Amino acid sequence: MKVYGVTGWKNTGKTGLMERLVTEITARGLSVSTIKHAHHDTEIDHPGRDSHRHRQAGAREVLVSSPVRWALMHELRGANEPSLDDLLARLSPVDLVLIEGYKRAPHPKIEAHRVETGRDLLAVHSPSVRALASNADPGDPVLAGLTVPVLALDDTCAIADFLLRDLGFAS
Amino acid sequence: MKVYGVTGWKNTGKTGLMERLVTEITARGLSVSTIKHAHHDTEIDHPGRDSHRHRQAGAREVLVSSPVRWALMHELRGANEPSLDDLLARLSPVDLVLIEGYKRAPHPKIEAHRVETGRDLLAVHSPSVRALASNADPGDPVLAGLTVPVLALDDTCAIADFLLRDLGFAS
Repeated sequence: MKVYGVTGWKNTGKTGLMERLVTEITARGLSVSTIKHAHHDTEIDHPGRDSHRHRQAGAREVLVSSPVRWALMHELRGANEPSLDDLLARLSPVDLVLIEGYKRAPHPKIEAHRVETGRDLLAVHSPSVRALASNADPGDPVLAGLTVPVLALDDTCAIADFLLRDLGFAS
Repeated sequence: MKVYGVTGWKNTGKTGLMERLVTEITARGLSVSTIKHAHHDTEIDHPGRDSHRHRQAGAREVLVSSPVRWALMHELRGANEPSLDDLLARLSPVDLVLIEGYKRAPHPKIEAHRVETGRDLLAVHSPSVRALASNADPGDPVLAGLTVPVLALDDTCAIADFLLRDLGFAS
């Protein structure tokens, strides 16, 4: 399966960009799944839900299935976090998997960037960043010396075009 | 993997029994996972959560991974609901999988029963029901003619004993 990442520092609009890319790329007829890395003790279900009660009671995994979706929750309970490859192996086949986070993994990525965060660009140091999606003005010094293309953060169509071309999908 | 079910009509305490059995059986040193069937359009995550946003945007699957757990949400989008065997094949190896619902599947089951629901017993007609966990008094006419053992619904220890013995775990 083809994979592409959205990376960037906090508050650069990664999740919004992921969401817009899923909408745009599925509208073009491709099937898309997503993987997201969460750094903390992220809860998925609501306390009081049956799945939450099963997990709290000590279940290793809880699988809830309904006529419209199913969900599998796996508690690590001290085991190592799975690698990105382990996670990819669990997905059903789709045309494209978009990955949020996993900065250090070698898959190609777009970096989301907002000038107001004042952070350095990952694109300068990370060879897996293939383009920058930024709200900076074209002449902004923060972009000086960049060797990757700069796209407008809000131009989802152009970002999708770049990403699909980079992956070899016909445009 | 060994599987055992908790079945019964609505409001007979199935989820509470599942929860108590997970706690009791994991306390005895066995690893347990659970599968639950939900009849309706059950949501797992909260609206506004990133995973929910990805799903709403059209993702086929969303996988969220954190240092303590991971969760995979799969949208059927018109496809058939997976069978119980398909779901079991997705679980990591554990000693026991407890299954809530899937009345018609052939795995062995305990039926949860509360007299106040006034419903017939599944145990009368379903050969896969191996015991009844009921709040009925021993002489209650609702239990007349039953050929399976009757256990007290709140006696989790006795129910766990029965189930593990039935599966061939050493007691």
